[in-house]
Amino acid sequence: MGRWEPNARGRLERAALELYVEHGFEQTTVAKITERAGLTERTFFRHFADKREVLFAGSGAMQELCVAAVAAAPDSATPLDMVAAALDAASARWEERGETVRKRQTVIDANAELRERELIKLAALSTALADAMRQRGVAELTARLTAETGIVVLKVAFERWIGDPGQRSLPQLIKECLNALGTMTGSR
Amino acid sequence: MGRWEPNARGRLERAALELYVEHGFEQTTVAKITERAGLTERTFFRHFADKREVLFAGSGAMQELCVAAVAAAPDSATPLDMVAAALDAASARWEERGETVRKRQTVIDANAELRERELIKLAALSTALADAMRQRGVAELTARLTAETGIVVLKVAFERWIGDPGQRSLPQLIKECLNALGTMTGSR
Repeated sequence: MGRWEPNARGRLERAALELYVEHGFEQTTVAKITERAGLTERTFFRHFADKREVLFAGSGAMQELCVAAVAAAPDSATPLDMVAAALDAASARWEERGETVRKRQTVIDANAELRERELIKLAALSTALADAMRQRGVAELTARLTAETGIVVLKVAFERWIGDPGQRSLPQLIKECLNALGTMTGSR
Repeated sequence: MGRWEPNARGRLERAALELYVEHGFEQTTVAKITERAGLTERTFFRHFADKREVLFAGSGAMQELCVAAVAAAPDSATPLDMVAAALDAASARWEERGETVRKRQTVIDANAELRERELIKLAALSTALADAMRQRGVAELTARLTAETGIVVLKVAFERWIGDPGQRSLPQLIKECLNALGTMTGSR
C-alpha cells in the first residue's frame, strides 16, 4: 500500500459494500468502486482479485482464528467446548465489525452465486475445525459432526443477530444456541 | 397414467437418471429422456414439470414421512429422539431405492444449480422438522437447532453411504452418526 493511499483496503471495502447494498452486487463494477473510494483500479487489484473477493477476503483469517482457538483449548475441553471456543473467538471479531458484517450478509443473501461461495467457505471452515479437533485427539466422526454442528450454531446465531439488530450481541446469541443444543437430548 | 404406458413415471425416472449420469444433466433434453423411455413428451410433462423435477419430485413425500415420524414419537422422546425417528423412516426408504438414490446424488453433486436446489429442499425439510417438534412442545430454538443437527447427520451419513457402497446400510450409518453426536459433550 503506497503512502498516497492511506487505508486503501478499508476504503475499497467500504465503497464496495455500500454500492453492493445500493445497486446490487451484479450491477456494481470495479470502476464504480474505485470511483467512490477515490482510488485507481490498479490499487483495487493490488488488494483484491475481483469484486467478489472483497466479500470473502477475510475468511482465511477467520478460519485461522478458529483453528487457533481449538488448539488452545484446555485438555479438559470436550469436542463441543473446543468448537464453542472457536465460535467465541470468531464472534468477538464479527461483533467489533458489526455494521460491515451485517451489510456483507445482506449482499450475500441476495445473490445465488455468492450464497454458493459462502457455503464453500463455511464447508472449508468446518473441515479446518474437524482437522484441528482430530489433532487434539477427537475421533474422526465425532470431530466431523461436532464441527458441522458448530457451523449450524453459527448459522442460526447469525440469522438471529442479522434479523434482530441492536438487541443481543453475537457472542450472547451463540451462547444461547449452545445452551439450547444441550437441551436436545433432555426432556421437554 | 393411461393403460398404454405401464409405470410411465418409473420408466421416465430411470431413463432420465441414466442419461444424466452418462451425458450430464445440462446436456440431456426431455426429448432424449422420452426417446430412451419409449414414451412421448406429452407423457413426460404429465408426470414432471421439467427435467429438473425428475430429481426432486420425491422430496415432498420424504418430508411428509419425516414429519409423520416426529408426530408419532412417544411422549418420552427427547427432541433428538424425534429427529432420529424421522431419519430412520427416511433412510429405510432410501435404502430400498439404493441404486437410484446413489445415481441421483452423483448427478446433483456435479451441478451447481442442482446443489442449490437440493440445499433449498433440505432447508425446507429442516423447517418442517422444527415445526413438527414445536407441535410436540419443543421450544423454538431447541427445535430449530435439533432439526438442523438432524440435517447434518443426514448429510454426513449420506456421504459415507455414497462413498462406501455395499458396506453398511444407511440406517446403520445414521445410527453411528447419532452415537458420535452423543460423544460430542463427553471426554475424549
